[in-house]
Amino acid sequence: MERTLIREIKRAENEEVLIRGRVTNVRSLSNLTFIQVQDYTSSIQVVFEKNLDVKVSEAVEIIGTAKKEERSKTGFEIQGKELTIVSKCIEDLPIDLSKNDLNLQLNTLLDNRTLSLRHPKTIAIFKLYDIILKAYESVMREEGFTEVKTPKTLEAASEGGANFFKVDYFEKEAFLAQSPQLYKQILTGVFERVFEIGPVFRAEPHFTTRHVNEYISLDAEMAFINSFKDVTAMINKVFKKMFKIIAREGEEYLKIWGAKMPEVPGEIPHIKLAEIKKIIKEKYDYEIPANDIDPEGERLACRWAKEEYDSEFVFITHYPWKEKPFYTMPSPDNPEETEGFDLLFKGLELITGSQRIHDYKQLIENMEKKGVKPEGLEFYLETFKFGMAPHGGWGLGSERILQQLLGLPTIKEAILFPRDVKRLSP
Amino acid sequence: MERTLIREIKRAENEEVLIRGRVTNVRSLSNLTFIQVQDYTSSIQVVFEKNLDVKVSEAVEIIGTAKKEERSKTGFEIQGKELTIVSKCIEDLPIDLSKNDLNLQLNTLLDNRTLSLRHPKTIAIFKLYDIILKAYESVMREEGFTEVKTPKTLEAASEGGANFFKVDYFEKEAFLAQSPQLYKQILTGVFERVFEIGPVFRAEPHFTTRHVNEYISLDAEMAFINSFKDVTAMINKVFKKMFKIIAREGEEYLKIWGAKMPEVPGEIPHIKLAEIKKIIKEKYDYEIPANDIDPEGERLACRWAKEEYDSEFVFITHYPWKEKPFYTMPSPDNPEETEGFDLLFKGLELITGSQRIHDYKQLIENMEKKGVKPEGLEFYLETFKFGMAPHGGWGLGSERILQQLLGLPTIKEAILFPRDVKRLSP
Repeated sequence: MERTLIREIKRAENEEVLIRGRVTNVRSLSNLTFIQVQDYTSSIQVVFEKNLDVKVSEAVEIIGTAKKEERSKTGFEIQGKELTIVSKCIEDLPIDLSKNDLNLQLNTLLDNRTLSLRHPKTIAIFKLYDIILKAYESVMREEGFTEVKTPKTLEAASEGGANFFKVDYFEKEAFLAQSPQLYKQILTGVFERVFEIGPVFRAEPHFTTRHVNEYISLDAEMAFINSFKDVTAMINKVFKKMFKIIAREGEEYLKIWGAKMPEVPGEIPHIKLAEIKKIIKEKYDYEIPANDIDPEGERLACRWAKEEYDSEFVFITHYPWKEKPFYTMPSPDNPEETEGFDLLFKGLELITGSQRIHDYKQLIENMEKKGVKPEGLEFYLETFKFGMAPHGGWGLGSERILQQLLGLPTIKEAILFPRDVKRLSP
Repeated sequence: MERTLIREIKRAENEEVLIRGRVTNVRSLSNLTFIQVQDYTSSIQVVFEKNLDVKVSEAVEIIGTAKKEERSKTGFEIQGKELTIVSKCIEDLPIDLSKNDLNLQLNTLLDNRTLSLRHPKTIAIFKLYDIILKAYESVMREEGFTEVKTPKTLEAASEGGANFFKVDYFEKEAFLAQSPQLYKQILTGVFERVFEIGPVFRAEPHFTTRHVNEYISLDAEMAFINSFKDVTAMINKVFKKMFKIIAREGEEYLKIWGAKMPEVPGEIPHIKLAEIKKIIKEKYDYEIPANDIDPEGERLACRWAKEEYDSEFVFITHYPWKEKPFYTMPSPDNPEETEGFDLLFKGLELITGSQRIHDYKQLIENMEKKGVKPEGLEFYLETFKFGMAPHGGWGLGSERILQQLLGLPTIKEAILFPRDVKRLSP
């Protein structure tokens, strides 16, 4: 007998079908057994008129008759006839997967990650993640960007600083890429517009709800821009299209989380860092301490954008020259500032981007001023002698989109197997 | 004046347009200058009725009139009026990008990679790569696979053996993932069908035309299979669909390389390793030395498949138990062999795959027999106590598809910035 996918049950009304899948719930009621079964297409309830020894998480094969059932999600249920347990649980599950909410401490959740992922609410998170990846790559292609894959083992730390991991690379020492920054800039000289979806590695000793040491960055870089505003306009467009796709294709999973897709404004508000600092001080009586903006500042900036523009998004622009990496374009009218920006979403930074320096001499001068040594960067610098058009781009933390959309308490819940200072396993 | 994309020139016949792009060729003929300009959408010839000082690789902005021109690829050319060099070459290019073929030694090609990538033939390689990535992810989604991203920094080497890179991970030691093997198996217990596109790292001290130390693996894993043949059938289907997409969307780039997309058979031939060895000995008088199959053996196996079945593809099945990793399912009728297979394409291995062991006890026993220690694998092993359905999958070297399709002399030409024992830069 051939397998019927649960999504296709509706075409088999009153017919005998064979389904395969994982048990996500079991209830017994007098002499009835209700089994919820999930395959890669959907989920359905099977009713047996007997008591059965079957457990949540077991892999089963069921023969039964497809029956219309208005109250079910698929409009159908199955009258069970035969149950085969394809793969048993040989011990009791260490966590209870049949509850509506797992409600576990973060460490318990992650220590048992290979099993806690099987919970329907957790599955919904990563089904949405799948849609985010799909949406990004399809929208970027639509906008004429070429997908590239750049190396993750490097001779020199891509962004400088101290937050890199070292690798034993044969007789040499290598570094794990903190971002595809230098490569994507170089590649604007080849394809004009490029994007990359890939892991980045940051050896930051953070213990926060918004940092991990390995994450998937959605990068992009585009040439022939007039100013950084061409980049923020592109981001605006990309988010508008992506959110539409996520809303449409992710509806079922968003509903599980009670999440609503926010509107992406036609024009996301822009405000200078220096200005928003003043506003936050005046309006909310909060003093942002550093040169940069702190998490509380990000929350208040978003509160302001919501109050002023009814926008969940805001671009903070013109970050100080001192705080930005050597490749960031200084502002033409104020060299203390840069053409660098962040995109905040619901109180959290999602994107860091900027216009980059494209002129060889300016780049060398800026590095000297910043005390950045050219060693290991020669291949990058040389390229700027041969016609690099004005360009800019961004890095977007893919998991943060999910974290903010669903209101997850930590980014670690938005990553299948997160990595932090203490956690390298599972 | 607004920029017109070169692809859109056809809508502006006899109108004045502004284009931006990179100069890919310059010719002077008496008082005429012919400039080939490329943007991210297409390429066009601009004719100026004067001599101009402009060089290949410079970024330019041109104002001129769009004119019908039958002999041109786009059906149009531009009568140039005004040329602005947006970004100059401040030195002579170290390589000649205006020749039809770069014709460089591999080391020269790669040492100058940031510039040699700008050659139209090289661009064509990576435009095809972009299409391969797109085709894989769209076909896999069509087949119900969920895209996942698994960690690349691990507590234990995923495949065992010695070919792993070590990472200084805070106070600990970590390993770079040799494959997403263990994670994708675990995730069949969550999503049933998963795929991943991501880098893998192999510390193999190889100096061959088919190996690099970092590459992009197209992985997949699927549960509820009846045998490994469900996996090879899925691969067959995926290639059929992918090659159709590549042929359609990559036509222009395949033509530049004079490459033709081979037919993917409705049923790719399968043959046991032991049998093909006998055939190769008898038919081609070549003795494959090892337990495995060597490069010459792979070439001859493909020659046989071509002669017998007119197929450029062949599955070599039932690799010996001794040679396969601990998670590979031993053959039920012959425990010296496994349900492991390779897919060869035009003489080269593209895919390694197998059915995996899904039974906890069998897995533990197989590890003991192989002398594999459970340390660092506990999270993986524990999962098998809780209902893992029969499953299998594959790892596909993305760049090898390109290498074989275009007949590139080495895989390094199919990677933007390849990594080998000696090369960590650019």
